[in-house]
Amino acid sequence: MPAPHRTALPVADVAIADEFWSPRRAIVRTGTIPHQERRLREGGQFEALRLEPRSHDDDERERFPIFWESDVAKWIEAASYVLASEDDPELEAAVDEAIALLAGAQQEDGYLNSYFTAVKPGKRFTDLRDAHELYCAGHLIEAGVAHFEATGKTALLDVVRRYADLIDREFGPGGSCEGGYDGHQEIELALVKLFRATGERRYLDLASRLIENRGREPFYFDAEAERRGDVGYFGKAWSGDGALVRDDRRSREYNQTHAPVREQDAVVGHAVRAMYQYCAMADLALELGDAGLRAACERLWDDLVSSKLYVTGGIGSDPSIEGFGPAFDLPDRTGYAETCAAIGLVFWAHRMMLLTGEAKYVEVLERALYNGVLSGVSADGTRFFYGNPLAGDGTVERSDWFDCACCPPNLARLLASLEQYVYVADGDGLTVNLYVSGTAEFDHAGNRVQIEQESAYPWDGRIVFDFDLEAPLAMTLRLRLPEWTVGAPTIAVNGTVLPYTTAQGYAVLARTWAPGDRVVLTLPMAPVLVRADPRVESARGKVAIQRGPIVHCVEEVDNEAPVPDLVIVRDGGIHTERVDGRDQVVAAGLVDRPAEGGLYRTGAPTAKPTEIRTVPYYAWGNRGKGTMAVWIRECPSVR
Amino acid sequence: MPAPHRTALPVADVAIADEFWSPRRAIVRTGTIPHQERRLREGGQFEALRLEPRSHDDDERERFPIFWESDVAKWIEAASYVLASEDDPELEAAVDEAIALLAGAQQEDGYLNSYFTAVKPGKRFTDLRDAHELYCAGHLIEAGVAHFEATGKTALLDVVRRYADLIDREFGPGGSCEGGYDGHQEIELALVKLFRATGERRYLDLASRLIENRGREPFYFDAEAERRGDVGYFGKAWSGDGALVRDDRRSREYNQTHAPVREQDAVVGHAVRAMYQYCAMADLALELGDAGLRAACERLWDDLVSSKLYVTGGIGSDPSIEGFGPAFDLPDRTGYAETCAAIGLVFWAHRMMLLTGEAKYVEVLERALYNGVLSGVSADGTRFFYGNPLAGDGTVERSDWFDCACCPPNLARLLASLEQYVYVADGDGLTVNLYVSGTAEFDHAGNRVQIEQESAYPWDGRIVFDFDLEAPLAMTLRLRLPEWTVGAPTIAVNGTVLPYTTAQGYAVLARTWAPGDRVVLTLPMAPVLVRADPRVESARGKVAIQRGPIVHCVEEVDNEAPVPDLVIVRDGGIHTERVDGRDQVVAAGLVDRPAEGGLYRTGAPTAKPTEIRTVPYYAWGNRGKGTMAVWIRECPSVR
Repeated sequence: MPAPHRTALPVADVAIADEFWSPRRAIVRTGTIPHQERRLREGGQFEALRLEPRSHDDDERERFPIFWESDVAKWIEAASYVLASEDDPELEAAVDEAIALLAGAQQEDGYLNSYFTAVKPGKRFTDLRDAHELYCAGHLIEAGVAHFEATGKTALLDVVRRYADLIDREFGPGGSCEGGYDGHQEIELALVKLFRATGERRYLDLASRLIENRGREPFYFDAEAERRGDVGYFGKAWSGDGALVRDDRRSREYNQTHAPVREQDAVVGHAVRAMYQYCAMADLALELGDAGLRAACERLWDDLVSSKLYVTGGIGSDPSIEGFGPAFDLPDRTGYAETCAAIGLVFWAHRMMLLTGEAKYVEVLERALYNGVLSGVSADGTRFFYGNPLAGDGTVERSDWFDCACCPPNLARLLASLEQYVYVADGDGLTVNLYVSGTAEFDHAGNRVQIEQESAYPWDGRIVFDFDLEAPLAMTLRLRLPEWTVGAPTIAVNGTVLPYTTAQGYAVLARTWAPGDRVVLTLPMAPVLVRADPRVESARGKVAIQRGPIVHCVEEVDNEAPVPDLVIVRDGGIHTERVDGRDQVVAAGLVDRPAEGGLYRTGAPTAKPTEIRTVPYYAWGNRGKGTMAVWIRECPSVR
Repeated sequence: MPAPHRTALPVADVAIADEFWSPRRAIVRTGTIPHQERRLREGGQFEALRLEPRSHDDDERERFPIFWESDVAKWIEAASYVLASEDDPELEAAVDEAIALLAGAQQEDGYLNSYFTAVKPGKRFTDLRDAHELYCAGHLIEAGVAHFEATGKTALLDVVRRYADLIDREFGPGGSCEGGYDGHQEIELALVKLFRATGERRYLDLASRLIENRGREPFYFDAEAERRGDVGYFGKAWSGDGALVRDDRRSREYNQTHAPVREQDAVVGHAVRAMYQYCAMADLALELGDAGLRAACERLWDDLVSSKLYVTGGIGSDPSIEGFGPAFDLPDRTGYAETCAAIGLVFWAHRMMLLTGEAKYVEVLERALYNGVLSGVSADGTRFFYGNPLAGDGTVERSDWFDCACCPPNLARLLASLEQYVYVADGDGLTVNLYVSGTAEFDHAGNRVQIEQESAYPWDGRIVFDFDLEAPLAMTLRLRLPEWTVGAPTIAVNGTVLPYTTAQGYAVLARTWAPGDRVVLTLPMAPVLVRADPRVESARGKVAIQRGPIVHCVEEVDNEAPVPDLVIVRDGGIHTERVDGRDQVVAAGLVDRPAEGGLYRTGAPTAKPTEIRTVPYYAWGNRGKGTMAVWIRECPSVR
C-alpha cells in the first residue's frame, strides 16, 4: 500500500490571525523585510548584479561576497510569502526590480553568480566545497518558486529554471562537474520544490543525483582541489607547509561527505548543512517512495533527538564548526545552537511528518519553533542572536545584523511562511499540526472546506475549531496530541465530550461533519520540571521548566540573586502567573549565596528561601544584561 | 636592607626516610629510571648521538626527535640525584656512557644537538620558536650541574659549559642570534644553575639577556621566519594559502613573547613554558636584587592563584594549547592540568619562597606536590597521566609512556631531588617548608647542626624535630604553618607548649637550642569542605574535600552509585577513617538517582541517604575504570 501523499496547506490557503504570532509576523513585514532591503542596497548585493568588473580586493570591504545571491534570494522569498497574502505594490515593485537585476546578471548559458562572473571569471564550479555557488543557486530557486506561487509571475522562475538547466548539464554525464555535489547543501531541497512547481522530473533527478553522489569515493572535493591546483576559498585543504592534503574524516564530516548519505547514521558536522541535506533526503524519500532513504532519515533523526538536541530545540553545540559535537555534548553557556540550525530543524521535521505521518516530528518542530528559533530575535524584531546559548553570564546580548547575514533573513522567511506548517491535507481529511489561530481553506472530495481555529495558545490549551461547510461532509480530522500535556487531552464536539482514538500521535476524529460543527480540544497545561539524561553534563543535578510548548529560563532581573545562586527545591511547589502577557512560572527555591573568599574557601554558602521566577526562553535578553539559565540547580528535599 | 639570601639545603645534605615519600622515591630509583634508560636505548636517543647521517624521513618513526637530548638529559639529571645519596655503580656506569656519547656528539665549536647535526645540518639556531634547541640545551645544562654536584665529576659540566659558551657567543653582540630567545623556555633557569655551580657571571648575564629580550619589538620570531624563508617545525606561522604571516597575539602568548616579561601581568599560554620562564625571572630577581622582576613575578603569581589554579595544584586548563585558559576557566572533566606544568609550578613556587621568604608560596607548592603532581603516576610507578583532569567519566586511565615523554622523567627528577624542597638555610637558622621525615645537616654560624624530623604526615599533623648539636647554639627555627589547619597549631619544646610569634606564614622560634632539644609541632587536621569562587563553572554548587594537604576525590568503586549521582549534604557530618594506609573521608550524602527516560524526561530523581567515601586525589584510577570527581554536588540542608 503506497503511503498517502500528505500535502502541507500552502501559504495562500491559510490565514493566520493569532495573538502570539501575528504581531511577530507584522514585525517581519514592516521591519525585517524593509531593513533587509536597505542592507542589500547599501551592502552592494544589488549593485553587484550589474556585474561591473571588480577585483577581489574591492570585495574585502565585505567578507562574504560569495553569499550575495543568497542574501537577495532569501529576501525575495520572504517578500513573496508576504505578497501571497496581502497587496503591497511598493514591495512588489522592489521585488520586481531585484528580479530584473538577477535576470540581467544571468549569462547567455544560464549561469547566475555575480562573484564568479565579475570577480573570478573562468573559475565557476571549480570550488564546490567552499565557494557556495550551488548554495546560492538553491536559494535563488527557492525564491523563484515562492515568487511564482505567490504572484503567478514567472519572471524569476524562468531565470532559475534556465540556471537549473545549466547545472543539470554541468553535473550530468560528460559535464564539467560530473559526480560533483554541493559543499553547502541547499540546492537539493530547492530542486525538489522546483520539480513540484514545474512538474519537470529532471529537477527531481538532479536533486537525487547530487544527494546520492555525496560521500562516494574517490572524494569529489579532493579531485576538484587537485584539478584547481590552489587552496579553496576557505583554505582548509592545505597543510601548514603549503602541500595539498586530503580532507580528513573530520573535515568531511563538516559537510557530510564522509560517507554515502544512505550509510550515514549519526548527525555530524555543520548543523545547517546537515539539516538541509536531511530535508532533501526526506523529500526524495517521499517523492520516490524510497524506503532506504527514509530509513536513513529515521536513523539520523533518532540520533539527533536521543543525544544531540537541546531542550530548547536548538542544535549544533560546537561553535568551532557551527555544528554537532559528540553525543550528549550539550554545553549550556558555551553551546552554539545557531538560529539557522533550529530553523533547518523545523524544515526537516516538517518533511519527516509529511513523509511518515508521525506527530513526534511536529513535537520537535514545535519545540524548536517556540524556543530555539524564536529566541533568535528580540521582542521588537530588530536584534538577533546567531547562537542561542542556554545560559548567560551577564555579558551576552543580541546584535543588530551581521555581515554573514544568514539568520535574520532565514527567520523572516520562516515566520512569513508559517502558514504552511499548520495544516496538512492527508487524503482522508485534515491534520492539524500547530495550534495557531486563523482559517484554512482546502478541498476534500470535491468540496470546499473552511475551518476556523481559535485559541490563546501557547498560554492556554483550549483550542476551538469551527467547520464552515456547504453541506455535511465525511472526513477525518486529526489533531496533534503533544507529549507535554499534563493529564489526558479531551475533545468535545458541539459541547459533548467524546471518546477518541489515537494514531501516530494524533487524535483521530472520523465522522460526517455538519456545517457549524464545533470541536473543542483541551490540552491540559501545567508547569513541569524537566531533567536531562545524566550524560548531559551541563544539566546534571539541574532542572529545566516547561509549560506547554514553552521552555522557560530564569533571568536575574526577575529574581533576588544572580541565577547561578538559585536552587529549585524538588517537590517545593510550582505554579504559573501571568506577567506582561505571557506565562511566568514561580517555583519554590533557595538563594544559596556563596561565602566570600579567594579562589578556594571553606566558608559555606548561606541558603534562604526564595521564589524563583521564570521567563519564556524565547523572551530572555530583552531587559538588559544579566545572568540567565535554562538549567537550574535542583536540591532534593531533605527532611 | 638587602634581603637575606636564602639557600635550599641541597640533596646531599638532606636524607629522606619518610613513610609516604620513601616508597615512591624507591620506585623512581628501581623502576622509573631503569625504564627510562631502556626507552632511551630502544627509542634511538642514545644511538642518535653517534651522529650517523639520517634523513628526516627516518625520524618519522619517532614524531619528536627534536626533543631527544632533553630525554637523555632528564634521565641523567634524575640519575644524578640518586647517585648523590647512594652508591649505584651500574647506574653510574650507564650515566658515564651517556655522557661519553654526548661528549662525542659535541662539535668542535661546542654545539651539541643530534637533530641539527645529523638530520638538518646548517640549520642550527634558525628556528628558535619551534625547534626546541635551547630547551634541549637547558636540560643538558641542568643535567651537567646535577651530575657535577652529585658526583664531583666534571665530564658533563665541561661539555655543557662549552655549549653554553657557544650559545653566549651566538646570542651576544654580533652573534648570529643577537636579540634572540628560546621558543620553549628552559635554558634560562639552567644558566642560573650553571652560574651558581661555576661562579661564572657570564651565564647569569646570558640568562638575563634571554629573558629580557622576550616580547620586545620587532619580534624575533617574525624576523627569523623571514630570514629562514620556510615554515617552522610546527608550522604555525603560515596562513592557509601558504603566505608567511606574522604570529598573532594568541600565538605569541603561547610562548609568552607577547610583551616584555616585566610588563606581563597575566599567566597565559603554554603552562610549562610559562612556569620555566617565571622560574628564571625569580632566580634573576634574587641574584640581581631586581625589584622590577620581583614585582612582575608577584603580579603573575597573584593572577595564577586568584583565578587559574586548580584546587589540586594543577594548572593549564586548555588542552588545545597545553596551557592557560581565561580567568576562572577551570573545567573539571575536560581540563588539562599537565603533570609537567604542576611540576613547573613546584619549581616556581620554591623559587618564590627563596626570593621572598613567604610561606604562601610553599602552600601552593605543597598543594601541587601532594595532589596534581603525584596524581601523574600510578601507585606502582609504571603508568602515567599527562593531563590530570578533576573528573572522569569512567573512560580515563593512565598510559604507560608516550613518544613525547616529558612527564615521567620530569616526575622522576622531582621526586629524586625532593630533598631540596624541605629545608632552607635563611641566615638566621633553618626554615622548614615541608614536613618530610628524615634528617638535615647544615652549618650555622660555624657550627654543624643536624636536625631529625619525624611524622606520619600527610595523614597526621604531629611533627617532631630533634636537635643534634655539639653545643648550645642560638638560631632561629621557622616552621611553616599551613593555611589548611583546623584550629590553631601548637608548638611544644621539650614537652612544654610555648607561645610563638609568626612571620610570613611561619612560626618563629628564636632561642638558644641545646643538644637533644625536641620540638613538637601539632597542625590540627580535619576534613573540610572547600568551595570555589562561583565563577568556576565546574565547581558551582559543588564542594571538594580536603584534609591536611591532601585533596580528596570520590571514586565510583568506593560508593553505592556513579559519582555524578552523589550529593553531599551540607552540615550532614564528615569524618575520617583509615583505609589502605591512607585517609578516607566519609561524608553524609545522598544517592540522587535519575529517573529513566529519553534525552529529556519529567520523572524526578529518587534520593536516598548514603555515606560518600573519598580517596586521595593522587591515588585515583588505581583500581580499574569508573567515574570520579573532585567536585561533588552539595545540597543545602533544607528543613
